[in-house]
Amino acid sequence: MSQFSFVIPGEVVLGAGVVNKLAEIGKSYGSKAYLCMDPFLEISGVGSEIEGLLKKDGVDIVKFTKVKPNPSCHDIDEGADLCRKEKCDFMVAVGGGSAIDTAKAIAILAINPGNSWEYIARSDREFRTFSESLPLIAVPTTAGTGTEVTHYSVISNPDIHEKGCIHNKVLVPDFALVDPELMVSKPPKLTAYTGIDAMCHSLESFLNVNSTPFPDMIALESVSLVARYLPEAVANGTNIVAREKMAYASTLGGVAIALAGTILPHGLGQPVSGLVDMPHGASMAASLGHIMEISYTSNIEKFARLAECFGEPLDGLSTYAKAEMSVEFVQRLLKDTGAEVTFGEYGLTEADLEKTAEIAVNNYSFDLNNSPLKVSKEEIIEIYRNCL
Amino acid sequence: MSQFSFVIPGEVVLGAGVVNKLAEIGKSYGSKAYLCMDPFLEISGVGSEIEGLLKKDGVDIVKFTKVKPNPSCHDIDEGADLCRKEKCDFMVAVGGGSAIDTAKAIAILAINPGNSWEYIARSDREFRTFSESLPLIAVPTTAGTGTEVTHYSVISNPDIHEKGCIHNKVLVPDFALVDPELMVSKPPKLTAYTGIDAMCHSLESFLNVNSTPFPDMIALESVSLVARYLPEAVANGTNIVAREKMAYASTLGGVAIALAGTILPHGLGQPVSGLVDMPHGASMAASLGHIMEISYTSNIEKFARLAECFGEPLDGLSTYAKAEMSVEFVQRLLKDTGAEVTFGEYGLTEADLEKTAEIAVNNYSFDLNNSPLKVSKEEIIEIYRNCL
Repeated sequence: MSQFSFVIPGEVVLGAGVVNKLAEIGKSYGSKAYLCMDPFLEISGVGSEIEGLLKKDGVDIVKFTKVKPNPSCHDIDEGADLCRKEKCDFMVAVGGGSAIDTAKAIAILAINPGNSWEYIARSDREFRTFSESLPLIAVPTTAGTGTEVTHYSVISNPDIHEKGCIHNKVLVPDFALVDPELMVSKPPKLTAYTGIDAMCHSLESFLNVNSTPFPDMIALESVSLVARYLPEAVANGTNIVAREKMAYASTLGGVAIALAGTILPHGLGQPVSGLVDMPHGASMAASLGHIMEISYTSNIEKFARLAECFGEPLDGLSTYAKAEMSVEFVQRLLKDTGAEVTFGEYGLTEADLEKTAEIAVNNYSFDLNNSPLKVSKEEIIEIYRNCL
Repeated sequence: MSQFSFVIPGEVVLGAGVVNKLAEIGKSYGSKAYLCMDPFLEISGVGSEIEGLLKKDGVDIVKFTKVKPNPSCHDIDEGADLCRKEKCDFMVAVGGGSAIDTAKAIAILAINPGNSWEYIARSDREFRTFSESLPLIAVPTTAGTGTEVTHYSVISNPDIHEKGCIHNKVLVPDFALVDPELMVSKPPKLTAYTGIDAMCHSLESFLNVNSTPFPDMIALESVSLVARYLPEAVANGTNIVAREKMAYASTLGGVAIALAGTILPHGLGQPVSGLVDMPHGASMAASLGHIMEISYTSNIEKFARLAECFGEPLDGLSTYAKAEMSVEFVQRLLKDTGAEVTFGEYGLTEADLEKTAEIAVNNYSFDLNNSPLKVSKEEIIEIYRNCL
């Protein structure tokens, strides 16, 4: 145990019905809310529920629903113009990871100069920094992203087909209202992909070579919950207990990555979903099973510990055999939840592999360097090819 | 799982040598530190080490060492006069729970009116509230109190022989520098009592009827660490691994009580150490074994879960039998660490029991109400008598 630190700066409120606290919390920041929301929530009724909660308590709303998967920096810049013009007091983000990441970036631009892409952290050029952003209440409607508790905002630049990440501790939402009742209507496929994303956050944090005891504990709790409850949440979406446990697992996964960080498969999946329009969770699911297979020998003890989270009998097995079982358990989870997918299904082709691997090496070196399994550019191409 | 929330607002930095970050962190608040410190640290060399770290980086120091076990509200008021007069920018608290609780109370009075006892939360009279206090960096030198991460300050009023608690989220230290190297010189008895205090924080939080999944997870990790490492920390104080693990366990215990709260034995021990001068940890150790014995049937599942943290084989035992084992494991830990003690050894007598139980019922009703085992005033007297 070497030196390590932890803090969970935003307040997390979980449970069925917690969204009803929205207006009360929001009013501590002011009377004008910027509501950044997934557009389909307007159809599903969740949107009008949220608006009703705010209006009933006298909060004015400026609404922005130009939110897309892998949010575009141009949409964000447009949203920021609206926020500045309307002089909103605080942000409310309702939706999946895209809505919350869009809101985080708008929260920066609301009180800082420039455009969103200029804030992307890069090793190959200067980028803008900041020390304040507008207060933000995050209300996730999927269980997976964890962005409601992280200091990241991941956005895309369609002009150059790249994704990038803004990271700053002030981006942690002041409040995360994690309400499983908002998640029960999510379809099985989306539930599976987002749930696998939560699994990736947790196991990647745990396997990260820089991980430390506090995020390890949180990651393992999250892995256990996903292993146990994701199949049920996919099969019976209205099972509120399964949704609650997945909502909690997702938030724990977010805390874990905020403290320890991702490795593979995030380092390989993100470049793909920057290039082709693939849902974030699917881009993780596409390589997770294969990456487990080729990397479990890189840290036998930790992979064995992962296997123990799946609640299956492992009595009498050696540490090595348990580590092997972790591969099988994860692959079985992908299969049982219908999350088996390939990069090719979303349009990645053999001709893209060289460029995609190049982006991984250049822009996701943190993820690659912190993996217990070190991979060269050639090996990354080979992984992509295996998952095509 | 009903609604619950969590946040860890202060940054915790753990590990051998982390105290060296003190000046760098302190200077972000200003150039004049109020150093509130246990007086014996001046003799041990830790005091001069801390002063050296601050001065080397150009931080001016105003020193206050009138810190006693069960800190007196009068000493705190005197310390606050000094802090106001010297216009310090931030507080540094170095020592056990008393030094940190003293510093927390001074941090309030530095920028708020009145005296310390007026801020004690009470159900039977009005009390002062506040929304700001001076920034505080806590450097614990014992592993047990957990106050480096809590929003509590427990202080005593010698005029009326009572203890009381100030609680407010701004009392959470901005930084906790938890450095096991500062703990290696602590004698076995002190190590044992403070370690049992950490155990109490964790198991009381876990058993608290209002506990929730997040503090449960943290509490169980802490119980496992104390069970495994406290005997070694007592037997071989210079074993830095054992000290590290206990330091971490203690901080986790603090996070757990901050989120879930204590029950018995805190509800019964605190009134005793307000009345007679008994170290806080000893006042917990005096009743812990007996309370385990009389309360394990109040929540068989949770006591069984506690037993599983002790790393002993429990294969084939029923949940009930495991719960019974938790009693034996805790009593054995008390014995093996030399923490067996009675209230009588510190001067509590039969004649005090009625009054002490009265204080428990009136001032510690939260602890009593949140215990899975409900106890009447008469039963409290009987518990005290059993531990006399």
